[in-house]
Amino acid sequence: MTPDGPAAARFTSATHRDRINRAAAAAAERGVEALLITPSPDYAYLLGYQAPAMERLTCLVVPADGVPTLVLPRLEEPLARHGLGELADDVELIAWDEAEDPIQVVKARLGTALRVALQDQMWARFALRLHAALDPAQLVEAGPTMSALRAVKSPEEVERLRAAAAAADEAMTAISRERLSGRTEAAVSARIRELLLEAGHETAGFAIVASGPNSASPHHTAGERVIEGGDAIVLDLGGTRAGYCSDTSRTAFVGEPPAEFAALFGVLQQAQRAACDAVRPGVPAADIDGVARGIIDDAGFGAAFIHRTGHGIGMETHEEPYLVSTNRAPLVAGHAFSVEPGIYIDGTWGARIEDIVICTESGGERLNTTSTDLVIVD
Amino acid sequence: MTPDGPAAARFTSATHRDRINRAAAAAAERGVEALLITPSPDYAYLLGYQAPAMERLTCLVVPADGVPTLVLPRLEEPLARHGLGELADDVELIAWDEAEDPIQVVKARLGTALRVALQDQMWARFALRLHAALDPAQLVEAGPTMSALRAVKSPEEVERLRAAAAAADEAMTAISRERLSGRTEAAVSARIRELLLEAGHETAGFAIVASGPNSASPHHTAGERVIEGGDAIVLDLGGTRAGYCSDTSRTAFVGEPPAEFAALFGVLQQAQRAACDAVRPGVPAADIDGVARGIIDDAGFGAAFIHRTGHGIGMETHEEPYLVSTNRAPLVAGHAFSVEPGIYIDGTWGARIEDIVICTESGGERLNTTSTDLVIVD
Repeated sequence: MTPDGPAAARFTSATHRDRINRAAAAAAERGVEALLITPSPDYAYLLGYQAPAMERLTCLVVPADGVPTLVLPRLEEPLARHGLGELADDVELIAWDEAEDPIQVVKARLGTALRVALQDQMWARFALRLHAALDPAQLVEAGPTMSALRAVKSPEEVERLRAAAAAADEAMTAISRERLSGRTEAAVSARIRELLLEAGHETAGFAIVASGPNSASPHHTAGERVIEGGDAIVLDLGGTRAGYCSDTSRTAFVGEPPAEFAALFGVLQQAQRAACDAVRPGVPAADIDGVARGIIDDAGFGAAFIHRTGHGIGMETHEEPYLVSTNRAPLVAGHAFSVEPGIYIDGTWGARIEDIVICTESGGERLNTTSTDLVIVD
Repeated sequence: MTPDGPAAARFTSATHRDRINRAAAAAAERGVEALLITPSPDYAYLLGYQAPAMERLTCLVVPADGVPTLVLPRLEEPLARHGLGELADDVELIAWDEAEDPIQVVKARLGTALRVALQDQMWARFALRLHAALDPAQLVEAGPTMSALRAVKSPEEVERLRAAAAAADEAMTAISRERLSGRTEAAVSARIRELLLEAGHETAGFAIVASGPNSASPHHTAGERVIEGGDAIVLDLGGTRAGYCSDTSRTAFVGEPPAEFAALFGVLQQAQRAACDAVRPGVPAADIDGVARGIIDDAGFGAAFIHRTGHGIGMETHEEPYLVSTNRAPLVAGHAFSVEPGIYIDGTWGARIEDIVICTESGGERLNTTSTDLVIVD
């Protein structure tokens, strides 16, 4: 009846209990009386299982003070009890029937709360109905609360990210050893998905194969273009393993690259390495972006680096912290993010190098361990 | 960098142009000055390609009167141009850079609009930011406008649903011929996913295998329970083919069922058939639910039928119209929906039968053509 949700990232019940308590405390600190968390990575982070995001409202109500309530459709109750395990003792379940209005059920739990935070990815239909039902309460984003918690990874989470990165490296190494010319981007992409699964990913989330002029499009996926001699190829792949994401990019070239491309790539490699080396607690995220951008600018490629330097990663491929010029927030030990500058020359070629990096007390630690050199392929 | 979006359901550019024009006209009729459509099935329905739903805002602005605008991150622009094809001539593209605020870009396109509709699944973070930025504009749900359009399928859409249903029937027939006892639910579920793909689905969305007491949980997925003699098994499977969804359920029994189960199943089969037969234009959706529920109630199983009778289906597995007691809206020729009553006896067993039905001028047409009889398996 319902598409499966993403795999949940389950830890011990004590861990999830602690996360719920910390979310409640962080909400209280912001003057938020309750967090409303619909199925999403935040939901799985708190409860250790995933419920489907759908037209029937499931909503975890986390009061700043008091017992959390899980409002859910009656027919989801068995699945929720199974998913919660012993955490069900800490959460009151309220199942609503098909002819009931779940918005009113949530409202009844909120009492006279005047400041309520909505999960970032909650559907607008629910946000708008809550807005009307809870008037005059102020609705704010739960994002800042949840992302501050989730951005700082526990040692167990770092281990999961490390295992996911190792699996992605395995797939990257394997595809780099294959002959790529004469195959379509789509065929190589399908092969990468196989390799991601073979290496232990639960899902093969994406496998960008951008060849020749397509390599100048950062989010090109993979099409019917046949790879040929003289192509630059951006390979960007990842998936999930035990609920945590991998994401790595390398650039390949079919045959020996012309001097012009080698020069461009050398600048990129230097920029990516310098940005990784600049990682340490207290440095503003924007400064890491600045390090990579400065080197690329100085070499005259500034206008060709058309995206931010990186994004946080964890249960989602993209999450806080973002390494972008506007983010002055300092890095914190436990932050996990990509460092992935790119240079894209429209109509000609492009290149990107991407590693996942953990900010530790003693500096940045790259989880991806394959060489960042240009990969020469047949 | 980004997980792939669902496959787009592409038709001719003329079809998509017509859909955009009808959406604009329907908005005007509601007094809505613009629809804001973020990546979602609505987005793919209008534009013929899917963009990723992510933290970087992509938003199609469809004014009630005037040229539509697609506001999108600069690095998504090549993919959008590729996806739009010749439709790019009808839509103005505005790419925003990493350090810009896309909410302000959308706001600038809206001028002094005072009533703006948000796509149902737009992320709350964007809905809340738009609410603040567009004040004092009233934000309403785009759902009624979009779902009224999408609920009435064109002949081309019905053909896609028919092909998806045929592929699902092929998978259901194949799994029904296999020995199921001695295998785990999870193993049978994995096998169904293979069969869905072999039958021509692009994605195997879900494969519920609920055996023994688990069959009493409508949304049980599939676990480590080993199927054994005397089990009832609810099989509920589906995926997408050419961008349209399949969804069918049959109930199996390992060996000969006891008389008690056979009686329960007989009531269910009669209820499902009667509900299918009651379909015709002008009948309120609630009445189809009422037909199934009446028969199940009369047989004393009313309290065991714990969900609505069905849901619309198209580019989403669940969409309008919903066959639920509270939906008095009349069926219209071109509506496509599931008819899937179920009876669930907690702790013991359950059963469900589900077909996709098209409402035609002359009555209901079942797209699933496998027998609804109880499937006896080894």
